[in-house]
This record gives sequence, C-alpha cells and structure tokens, in this order.
Amino acid sequence: MTPLYIVGLGPGGREHLTPAATRALGTSHCAVGYGPYLAQVQDLLVGKDCRDLPLGEEIPRARLALDLAAAGKPTALLSSGDPGIYAMATVVFEQLATAPGAGWEGVEVQVIPGISALQAVAAKVGAPLACDFCAISLSDCLLPWTTIERRIDAAGQGDFAVAFYNPVSQRRRWQLPRAREILLGYRPTDTPTIIARNVTRPGETLQLTTLGELAVEAVDMLTLVLVGSAETRVWGPWLYTPRGYQPPP
Amino acid sequence: MTPLYIVGLGPGGREHLTPAATRALGTSHCAVGYGPYLAQVQDLLVGKDCRDLPLGEEIPRARLALDLAAAGKPTALLSSGDPGIYAMATVVFEQLATAPGAGWEGVEVQVIPGISALQAVAAKVGAPLACDFCAISLSDCLLPWTTIERRIDAAGQGDFAVAFYNPVSQRRRWQLPRAREILLGYRPTDTPTIIARNVTRPGETLQLTTLGELAVEAVDMLTLVLVGSAETRVWGPWLYTPRGYQPPP
Repeated sequence: MTPLYIVGLGPGGREHLTPAATRALGTSHCAVGYGPYLAQVQDLLVGKDCRDLPLGEEIPRARLALDLAAAGKPTALLSSGDPGIYAMATVVFEQLATAPGAGWEGVEVQVIPGISALQAVAAKVGAPLACDFCAISLSDCLLPWTTIERRIDAAGQGDFAVAFYNPVSQRRRWQLPRAREILLGYRPTDTPTIIARNVTRPGETLQLTTLGELAVEAVDMLTLVLVGSAETRVWGPWLYTPRGYQPPP
Repeated sequence: MTPLYIVGLGPGGREHLTPAATRALGTSHCAVGYGPYLAQVQDLLVGKDCRDLPLGEEIPRARLALDLAAAGKPTALLSSGDPGIYAMATVVFEQLATAPGAGWEGVEVQVIPGISALQAVAAKVGAPLACDFCAISLSDCLLPWTTIERRIDAAGQGDFAVAFYNPVSQRRRWQLPRAREILLGYRPTDTPTIIARNVTRPGETLQLTTLGELAVEAVDMLTLVLVGSAETRVWGPWLYTPRGYQPPP
C-alpha cells in the first residue's frame, strides 16, 4: 500500500502548519496542488515531483494524486485550510467511490487535518464561535440555491453563529445580500459581523461591521464572512459569544 | 503589555500541535490548565510556573491566567482542541467584559487556534463535514434545553452534518436520545453516524453506526458524536459527504 496524504496547509501562516502536515509533505515523493499552495510550502518540497493544476481542476488533481500513489509513489495532495472543510478530501472519496475500476486499490488514503479559515478568523477577533455555530458555502456551482437558502434559513432559526465560505465570486454577487436578508429576519441589524481577508497571510485585513451594513463590495473570493449569533457581543476590539445566556422570549 | 496566550492544544496527538502553540508555550513563564492538559505538554513546560485547576473551575482558571499576565508574567492558558470552540477563549472574554476594574488593562490577549475534535474525527473517517455542517453542544449546564433543542431542530431542517460536543455526562443521559429523535424526524434511520472517543490519543476508538442505532450506552464524556447529513455516504471504511447533489423532493 502506498500512502496518499491529503494535507491541510492551514490558513496560510506557516506557524499554523501542523507537524503531521510537515511530516506528510516530507515523506512524499510527489506533491499535487494549486500553484499558490505549492509555493506556500516550497521549501518542504525541494527535489520532489510537483504537479501544479489550476483552480477549477479539483477532480483532475484528485485523480492525478490517486494515480501517482497507485504507481507506488507516496504522494501529498495539498489543500488549503482543513482538507475536510470545503476542500480536497471529499473530492478524493467521490473519485474512489465512483471509479472502482481505476486501479487505485493499492492506495492508502490519510487525511491530515489543518486549521480552517473559520478558526483562524475567530482566533484573531476573539471567540465568536464559542457557542454553537455552522459553516455554509454560498457557492451554488454544485448545489442548488434552494438547498443553500434552506440552510441559511435554518441557521437563522437556530441562531447559530455562521461562517460563510465562498461568499462571492466574480459571477456570484447576489447570494451574499440574499443570505444577509434571510438572517436579518431572525437577528438584529447590529449583529457583529467580520469581513476577513487573507488571514494569517501578508495583506491580512479584518473589518468589523454589522449584519445590517454588510456590503457585497467589501467581499471577494479570498474573504471569509463571519456573522455572530444574536448573543455575540463586542467588547473593545474583541467579539465573543458567551457560553450561557437566557433564551429570547 | 504582557501576553496571555490562550493556547489550543489540538485533539491530543502531539503531531497536531501547531508551531504557534509550541512557541506560545515556550515563551510563557506561567501555564494554567486542567492537569491532564498540562501533562500532555509537560516537556514544553519544564521550569515554568504551572497551575493545575480542576474541571469545573474554568472561570478561576481564566481569572488566574489574567492575574498572572497582569502581574507581568507572560502566561499560557491551556485549552484542548481549539480554544474558540467550546473551550477557554470565551471564558477569558466573559471575565474581561464583566470585571472592568480587575486590573487586567496591561494584558495582551492572543488566541492560538488548534485542531478541534470535529476535525480530527472527520479526518480519521473520511470527509463527512465536506459540505455544510454545524456544531452543537448538548450540555444544558449553561444554556436552557429549549435553546439547544431549537438548534437541533434547525440542524435537521437545514440537513447539516452535525458534530455533537458534550453528548452525555454522568448526569445528562436523556439529551442525546432526544437529539437523535429530533434528527430522525428529518433524515433516515440509516444516516451514517460516528461515535469517536479519544481520537489521536492512546485508546482511540471510532465506531461507525447509524442514527437509528445510536445508543447512549456507547457514549461518554470523552466522546464526540458525528452525524452525517442525509447525503453522507459510506464507501468501504470511509464516510464522505459529496460536494454536490440534487435537493430532496
């Protein structure tokens, strides 16, 4: 059996790359990833067979990594954040499950978790996810918008703090305003909201705003939007959600 | 200003302790924590002033750590998993916000994120959280059960994969069966469910069951229960939630 490591690189800052991830990269002969992810850990990949496939080619990346491992080469498939949270791990399992005759029987998959964006952002601003929370991707490329909208509505009903992944793209502009509108049906306009970009990377920005003032113009593809629950509080520069409180009437 | 690092130790296995956490422990003069967490990183705490406070004394731990930092001693407050997810970070902000005259003005708080149990468990079993997910604590020590039940119901309505933290305790036995009953109103009895205990630690166990067969007897305080969405699939030993699927009718 040859290992295929699906490696979480974390939010970007190298101080958040786990020893498990470093070791997996070090013991791999091949590395497959989107170029900027390969560049992020290039010092750990010296002398290795690195394959750079562009954004949008997630399935080819997963298949190439499986093929390399199936050929007996220990391989790392690079993922930003946590590979299990809107990232590469499930792409590999989708391929394994749907292509049983592809010759991948000798591949031993290992998923190496990493710090996801929601954690990096939460840590920078305090403890907004300290009580119950959810993560929702606003990308309707693979899921129908009706399913996503049902989830946003449920997040409102349950008063979860919400981390929105993929909040906008160049084409997807109306989804974030619609998500805001749905949540405003359940929580106040002054609900603390964070627009976080490039967290733990050069050029990091963190903007505190409110749900009522959340503007799509301030958000791009490298942004995570984190909306507090109705109980999330602002104290000085910090946001936190208390552990205990009384229910709304 | 003197730093107070609120340090996420991750799920237990040292290969998941980030360099940022290791550095924060190394530069601290004092460490405050629950004994087993101090023991987990004792080699990094040699010669430091370590203060061991028992379970249940979360507020005294936060206040002691703030007092030590306010006295000019760089201090690490130890948290398992991620300090922002059902852990120590919000306890510190609660204290800061409610005791403004306590002499803590000179403390510079830094939250160091860590791998949370939901990520460690997901990585071991595949990619069950790959689509939208939520985290819910079943402890009603600080929140009314009605609030928690509303969240479980919302998780069902939104078809989120769910990570249940604090699923049971010696006293709290009926909450997990009730949560199961609520989710069964929304998703099939054969929904893949994982009972995970001590993940990445000695004695780790991972049990694949179904939502219909989830038994409270198999669960204890060291357990995370992870329930798939209606779309989560089993493939060989793995669980995964696909990135895209058609909505239920």
